[in-house]
Amino acid sequence: MKFVRFRDPAGAVRRGEYENGTVHFANESYSLDSDEIDVLPPSEPSKVVCIGKNYADHADEMGSALPDRPMLFLKPPNALAAHGDTVTLPAGKDRIDHEAELGVVIGEQCRHVPEADAMDVVEGVTCVNDLSNRDDQNQEQNWIRGKAFDGAAPMGPVLATPDEVPADAAVRTRVNGETKQDGSREQLIFSIPELIAEITTYLTLEPGDVIATGTPEGVGPLADGDEIEIEVEGVGTLEHSVRIP
Amino acid sequence: MKFVRFRDPAGAVRRGEYENGTVHFANESYSLDSDEIDVLPPSEPSKVVCIGKNYADHADEMGSALPDRPMLFLKPPNALAAHGDTVTLPAGKDRIDHEAELGVVIGEQCRHVPEADAMDVVEGVTCVNDLSNRDDQNQEQNWIRGKAFDGAAPMGPVLATPDEVPADAAVRTRVNGETKQDGSREQLIFSIPELIAEITTYLTLEPGDVIATGTPEGVGPLADGDEIEIEVEGVGTLEHSVRIP
Repeated sequence: MKFVRFRDPAGAVRRGEYENGTVHFANESYSLDSDEIDVLPPSEPSKVVCIGKNYADHADEMGSALPDRPMLFLKPPNALAAHGDTVTLPAGKDRIDHEAELGVVIGEQCRHVPEADAMDVVEGVTCVNDLSNRDDQNQEQNWIRGKAFDGAAPMGPVLATPDEVPADAAVRTRVNGETKQDGSREQLIFSIPELIAEITTYLTLEPGDVIATGTPEGVGPLADGDEIEIEVEGVGTLEHSVRIP
Repeated sequence: MKFVRFRDPAGAVRRGEYENGTVHFANESYSLDSDEIDVLPPSEPSKVVCIGKNYADHADEMGSALPDRPMLFLKPPNALAAHGDTVTLPAGKDRIDHEAELGVVIGEQCRHVPEADAMDVVEGVTCVNDLSNRDDQNQEQNWIRGKAFDGAAPMGPVLATPDEVPADAAVRTRVNGETKQDGSREQLIFSIPELIAEITTYLTLEPGDVIATGTPEGVGPLADGDEIEIEVEGVGTLEHSVRIP
């Protein structure tokens, strides 16, 4: 099943079932890209736990060694943005990149989850763009200006239950229609259950929290007005644009 | 004025006025350390923005150079703990330290706040213990296992309006009654207005968000059963204990 969270024409927040471009809630149906609704991120995470260097080819393009355990960083709620949004990027930076990622949405409060049980706490999968301000990222110990700025985590529009998502689901970015990243979930160094087990050794995950599982090779800079598509096969395509003030 | 957030005997969350060890709400009064009430963190932050190396003597004891701009990191909501709590620390670590800090509680949603206006967005000041798991902190790019674990940010109990807090307010830790840290707000490398201006260049701060302004020298390891007091002069004293499983 697939779901889309949205604000309906009366302003009420709904989670509708999604099928073939249409969102259904109660007796109403809307086109996903209709002006009648305002598409929201698929959940309201208290935190987004992101994974760095979880694809070997991306670690390589960044000149980084492979991690021996998951490399973790955080995006707070101010980083959220939704399908259809125009994200205003930090001003005066040389390079802010797209990073297509498969996002895991947590369904229940959990801690100390064994790998074998980890998929039980997953509500579904979504698309995430881990927007990355390289100017600051490269100068900071912790990637706050680099990764946690307002709008740095566009996500959605679809939350797909895990059964919808192939084990080798493609993870892609297109910028202005041109394919820039084209990886596969199969390439993940640390699997979704391994990530959940490791994170919950230290942190409680809450319903709606998101794990952004890392990006494949092909990251690259964005320019004012670019239209970005982040596709996760079996889930859908997140579309947003960026503005550089 | 001073305030304490608590759950009353009926389970309702209240913010009472605090005076001389007593919390007043409507017609009721409670002793702060009464079993009748459950003291809560002074706000419900969507994020705690922490500042590293903001006291020269602490940067020195950590063998670190002074930063040329504020060093930022994050603690998410799972890190919250309150006055009177026993924090269960991550298991199997060699060294988990106390770090006494002056915490700034934000009163309104804000972004791009000029230094000159920064105190207008401050609701008050509280006590924060920036608990730090050095084993992992020293091995991570981003301090997640090191600083964002469950319970890593005990705070409270008092939120004091800024007028209550001297410009040279002492910031102290006592462990089992023995003074371990004894610094002063005067020693801050980056002042509260400078921190707010810098953070809000990148991130929106929400009401209740907390800025933990850094720790003075004297950080040190905690042992199972230790009783910690974090005092900020003019505000009050946060008391909590730790358990090492």
